[in-house]
Amino acid sequence: MPTDSTSGSRAPARPSSSTSDGLFDGIYARGDVAAAVGGRAWLQAMLDVEGALARACAREGLIPDDAAEAIAAACRAGDFDLAALARETADHASPVVPLVRALREAVGGDTAEHVHHGATSQDVVDTAAMLVARRALDPLLRDSRAAMDAAARLADRHRATPVMGRTLLQQAVPMSFGLKAAVWLNAVADAAAWVADTRTRALAVQMGGPVGARSPAVAAHVARDLDLADPVMPWHTNRARPAGLASSLGALAGAFAKVAQDVVLMSQTEVGELREGVAGRGESSAMPHKRNPVAAVSVIACTERVPALVGAVFAAMPQEHERAAGRWQSEWGTMTDLMTLTGSAAAWSADLLGHLEVDAERMRANLGGADPDPGAADELIDRALGAYRA
Amino acid sequence: MPTDSTSGSRAPARPSSSTSDGLFDGIYARGDVAAAVGGRAWLQAMLDVEGALARACAREGLIPDDAAEAIAAACRAGDFDLAALARETADHASPVVPLVRALREAVGGDTAEHVHHGATSQDVVDTAAMLVARRALDPLLRDSRAAMDAAARLADRHRATPVMGRTLLQQAVPMSFGLKAAVWLNAVADAAAWVADTRTRALAVQMGGPVGARSPAVAAHVARDLDLADPVMPWHTNRARPAGLASSLGALAGAFAKVAQDVVLMSQTEVGELREGVAGRGESSAMPHKRNPVAAVSVIACTERVPALVGAVFAAMPQEHERAAGRWQSEWGTMTDLMTLTGSAAAWSADLLGHLEVDAERMRANLGGADPDPGAADELIDRALGAYRA
Amino acid sequence: MPTDSTSGSRAPARPSSSTSDGLFDGIYARGDVAAAVGGRAWLQAMLDVEGALARACAREGLIPDDAAEAIAAACRAGDFDLAALARETADHASPVVPLVRALREAVGGDTAEHVHHGATSQDVVDTAAMLVARRALDPLLRDSRAAMDAAARLADRHRATPVMGRTLLQQAVPMSFGLKAAVWLNAVADAAAWVADTRTRALAVQMGGPVGARSPAVAAHVARDLDLADPVMPWHTNRARPAGLASSLGALAGAFAKVAQDVVLMSQTEVGELREGVAGRGESSAMPHKRNPVAAVSVIACTERVPALVGAVFAAMPQEHERAAGRWQSEWGTMTDLMTLTGSAAAWSADLLGHLEVDAERMRANLGGADPDPGAADELIDRALGAYRA
Amino acid sequence: MPTDSTSGSRAPARPSSSTSDGLFDGIYARGDVAAAVGGRAWLQAMLDVEGALARACAREGLIPDDAAEAIAAACRAGDFDLAALARETADHASPVVPLVRALREAVGGDTAEHVHHGATSQDVVDTAAMLVARRALDPLLRDSRAAMDAAARLADRHRATPVMGRTLLQQAVPMSFGLKAAVWLNAVADAAAWVADTRTRALAVQMGGPVGARSPAVAAHVARDLDLADPVMPWHTNRARPAGLASSLGALAGAFAKVAQDVVLMSQTEVGELREGVAGRGESSAMPHKRNPVAAVSVIACTERVPALVGAVFAAMPQEHERAAGRWQSEWGTMTDLMTLTGSAAAWSADLLGHLEVDAERMRANLGGADPDPGAADELIDRALGAYRA
Repeated sequence: MPTDSTSGSRAPARPSSSTSDGLFDGIYARGDVAAAVGGRAWLQAMLDVEGALARACAREGLIPDDAAEAIAAACRAGDFDLAALARETADHASPVVPLVRALREAVGGDTAEHVHHGATSQDVVDTAAMLVARRALDPLLRDSRAAMDAAARLADRHRATPVMGRTLLQQAVPMSFGLKAAVWLNAVADAAAWVADTRTRALAVQMGGPVGARSPAVAAHVARDLDLADPVMPWHTNRARPAGLASSLGALAGAFAKVAQDVVLMSQTEVGELREGVAGRGESSAMPHKRNPVAAVSVIACTERVPALVGAVFAAMPQEHERAAGRWQSEWGTMTDLMTLTGSAAAWSADLLGHLEVDAERMRANLGGADPDPGAADELIDRALGAYRA
Repeated sequence: MPTDSTSGSRAPARPSSSTSDGLFDGIYARGDVAAAVGGRAWLQAMLDVEGALARACAREGLIPDDAAEAIAAACRAGDFDLAALARETADHASPVVPLVRALREAVGGDTAEHVHHGATSQDVVDTAAMLVARRALDPLLRDSRAAMDAAARLADRHRATPVMGRTLLQQAVPMSFGLKAAVWLNAVADAAAWVADTRTRALAVQMGGPVGARSPAVAAHVARDLDLADPVMPWHTNRARPAGLASSLGALAGAFAKVAQDVVLMSQTEVGELREGVAGRGESSAMPHKRNPVAAVSVIACTERVPALVGAVFAAMPQEHERAAGRWQSEWGTMTDLMTLTGSAAAWSADLLGHLEVDAERMRANLGGADPDPGAADELIDRALGAYRA
Repeated sequence: MPTDSTSGSRAPARPSSSTSDGLFDGIYARGDVAAAVGGRAWLQAMLDVEGALARACAREGLIPDDAAEAIAAACRAGDFDLAALARETADHASPVVPLVRALREAVGGDTAEHVHHGATSQDVVDTAAMLVARRALDPLLRDSRAAMDAAARLADRHRATPVMGRTLLQQAVPMSFGLKAAVWLNAVADAAAWVADTRTRALAVQMGGPVGARSPAVAAHVARDLDLADPVMPWHTNRARPAGLASSLGALAGAFAKVAQDVVLMSQTEVGELREGVAGRGESSAMPHKRNPVAAVSVIACTERVPALVGAVFAAMPQEHERAAGRWQSEWGTMTDLMTLTGSAAAWSADLLGHLEVDAERMRANLGGADPDPGAADELIDRALGAYRA
Repeated sequence: MPTDSTSGSRAPARPSSSTSDGLFDGIYARGDVAAAVGGRAWLQAMLDVEGALARACAREGLIPDDAAEAIAAACRAGDFDLAALARETADHASPVVPLVRALREAVGGDTAEHVHHGATSQDVVDTAAMLVARRALDPLLRDSRAAMDAAARLADRHRATPVMGRTLLQQAVPMSFGLKAAVWLNAVADAAAWVADTRTRALAVQMGGPVGARSPAVAAHVARDLDLADPVMPWHTNRARPAGLASSLGALAGAFAKVAQDVVLMSQTEVGELREGVAGRGESSAMPHKRNPVAAVSVIACTERVPALVGAVFAAMPQEHERAAGRWQSEWGTMTDLMTLTGSAAAWSADLLGHLEVDAERMRANLGGADPDPGAADELIDRALGAYRA
């Protein structure tokens, strides 16, 4: 059986930080995305924004160069008290007020007044959210690629392995299992390409000042500095960017869910064509003949939660005037959960596909008397592999 | 006041076809999208697919040329009994079985066997759904452009009209009302560009045969014929395309909702900066001092229903094996409603923005003593207008 | 095989009134609920409210008795022009303004001024919505009972029919198929009891006047007259009632979906334990060995759309001040769709369970060598039957 | 101004346990509910179930009395390694397998085999989930009562305070601010009564064994022991109970959201009728004239996320066969988030209403020349107060 040693198969990175103190993190927060969207990651991202803002303001002659350097040098998350900032966040419905105060204390003296020059809290939170997303998409796309590599291997290896095609869960006509794996690959690849495109185009700097009327010159510097897109204008209440990111994550989660659903169905005792291949996992002491499809079930447990969250991001789009009173503040938790759950589904999927056991004999037996018929499997598989590798 | 005579302002096109026999169609189904996604439009689209399929099969030498011509010539919706097809749809959970039977009867003789050659019901429904979507996006984007044109005019005309900027619904600092309109324009333009991009890239032919293993040659011909994208491989159970379309519609609805929300807030009696300007609409005989923001309320009535529908399309993504048992069939209604509601929101928004009355004096009075401060309004407005007109 | 002739098995009642001109109504709008929530039903319900209001005002001495009689006599939907009312609805974001005008014209003379005495549009729409719901719940609960009766028969008849119990889609230990049917019965019965409880307790009159400050005396009369609950106070912006109704419908849809999902799984070619038993339905000319589970697929097609709609009703709850600007108006379409889809699922479920073919031999064969073990099936089945029949 | 010292106003109880390492916990996880649904609370609840199960089995003569005593005595969460259990949870898609192993090790010897007698993992997780919910509902309902008490005081105190009634955000006719507060009270009270009813009736024991066929005798003992409802039969795949709980929480969140929305609107600079009254909160150093409605914004930030989660619980209802492969496992996270967010909204609402500053002069000024008209305010307020206090 093809197996992978992917990042997807390691133990959860932050067992103590989920909504349930980690009890279910192994399911919902597998892989490295969860840590990348955690409080410390947010804190560093906000500090990165303050640092970049200071440099940009210096370049525009708005603050002294040495103040900018001092501010940027102070923007290390390890020097800040995350718990204290969290406590004060509640008093402002924003983490930026206490952060700016703490950063001003850190730099001290005359430099303090140059911190956060001309910016509003939303500038910092929105830009930080984009940074957090970009950093979280790295492990997410890495695990997705591991899943796709495994699907590609299955597609190539099983070009000529016949399997029954099934529609409405009824046997229809035979096809190639390699083609089935190529459809999985193609679905994940389409969605991952969407995520990657979002990463490049939708993750943009926010630097509009109190009501979005600030000159875009500072934003352009910050965008270059942080390697984010430079938008036409501030997007304080134009939430197409979060919605675009959420959608692409939802599509990726949906693609993983489809694969997992097929694996569960093909692993049914009565079908028996696939089996998860990680020793010791999913076994039952009470029923030793059973091996539960734990990875596939975990993918579904994560992805089942995602569509509603996608809807929630869209529901939060109508944000009032120049800064919303609640809908904006709701996005932070929803986006965090979306990234965590999709990231976990990617890690589980890499594991699932990397360790899948294919029972080609059972597949053939399930054809009944039907003639194996790959159709245009070779051509279609090549197209899927070619598109993925392009 | 600037007013437009847009398609958005005409009476609903199909007062008798909604889920409530039309009683609420004036609100939920304004404009021309509703008719474009109605049963007759679906029927013609399915027939267009059968015609294109016949021509493609002839080109590939799979059926005789004259059979293809005869089939294509018979594919006129007006010649079919929509009500009878609808009745039989229930017996197959698909409209294609009765349609193919009726089409075979229509062409008769030896030609009958060449109808629907090598295709599966899903090929026809999915390709027809894409055609329906493309045809519905025309009026939707036309009404969106009317809304954007009106926003652009407001942005340009009111560059120097001061208005109070508001965050968390508290007065913050003054800004330019033209800039506010430019933010509306930019939000709608971003989302409309997403829809237009989806129209070009996501609307693809489906022609995979019973289990998706058919050679892509026929699909390529059909794609060219119907001016749809030619996908890497069949997407029977890879639902990124419906999800992408739904997302882009959701973003557009969200952008319209933001505008409408702002108009409602600025039309409050205590604020009084905006007023809907269609004579006779929204007036109350009991309270003649009142003019209700009917267009804005209708936009919100439509768009409030959209995010859940977007989520529903994502929830339907994990489709089993080579054709799903229920989730696929759920998409048809959800997508129809999504297009109808977003189309209605576009028509209402064109009307709303095209007839908006701006009370610049009241805006100035609401500044209190604050100095008017446009910030970088001119530069930002020019960027928004430039990006829209590009 | 046990078969029923239930209302669920008849052709759709309103093939021409859905969002797709009826093409998909056979799937989404089966049974009698769709007509009960259509435009004409809404119109009659609004007229019933105006009639009851007139009688209540007469009882309170607010209008003359003969005026009340004349108004009530005029409240016949057949005498009104539904299409014209629909057109004018768009000008007010409410159907009540044109309705009151038309009713005043109908009664004429001095009586006209007594129409709609002291009421607001929301009083009429909300009370009518409750009437519409109550009338739609009759066929919905009737079809649900037909489904439950069929499940009860299966439970009783198959007490001793062994079937494999399955967890995570893996075979676990044998159980009784009658018990499985009893679980279906119990799930539907729990949800139907919730719906019935909602019908009794949540469907209340609304009669608060312009801002909800009207004396409750008139409301009490109207409640008695229309057999609706009399609330503690007006609920113009307290939307627990729509949310409660939506939730109970969502639970019922979820229960039907669970049954349909199990039927699809047990109808898989490789499992073969159940088969839908309506001759001619779901058969495929291309693949005569196949019989598609059309009823189960249709149940899923409907119910898959429901959870998002439930969420949408909750999302619309935060309604501003004394009448919302958009969220309230969004409820009408969402509730209509919720009732139609759940009603259709009930009709399809009655049909599905009433015609289900049970292959007890295949069930036994699928046990492999495992000893049949009904567990406490008899006791549990009796409890389920007893609770249902209580 | 009336102020309260409620649990709602204390700092968040678990700053380190949210999905974002606590950075946003002050907003999303205020009050005591978050800790009550955390990992340690889940662990104790699962142990309570194992202890009750052991006692029940002893009562039924299935295991020795002293074994039951030894097991029950070992069921102290403090003696278990939560992090280790969390790690192993991933290998089984369930926390029960490692928990039972650890509990067997803890009791040791011959007693070990009597642990978890005849139960399945789902019995323990589902019953524990119900216990967790019940324990979390205590602080949630306590904070809700604090919010209602504050609303009741406002209603009583401001019976004769005129305020403009507003529909579609337009001024309509004057009413009493006390009546407005009574509507808030009534909405929260309706929803809280629903939650309390759910607590009593929907929170039931689950004890069906591997496939739900276990005799209900053991379940009855466990129900009595844990003070949970004793269901007609196991509900492994009948998810009306989670759906009912989710719905009631959604209604409560919606009621709080309505209050917060009204407060935000009445706190607008241009309206100025209400102001949040916690010193130092929501103030801006940049704009000292501003006081942001932080509590109301936080309520909205929480409650905006809730409707989608309610929908997600309904979407998870169609659970396959005797235990679902993914949908069941998705509920744990969704329900945890639902309770946390609704709990936080309750705590914030208690704080908001307990410290609300009412500007009766501004209310009167906003009437313009309109005559104050309380309507039936006194009668309706008395009804609302009476119903709440009943």
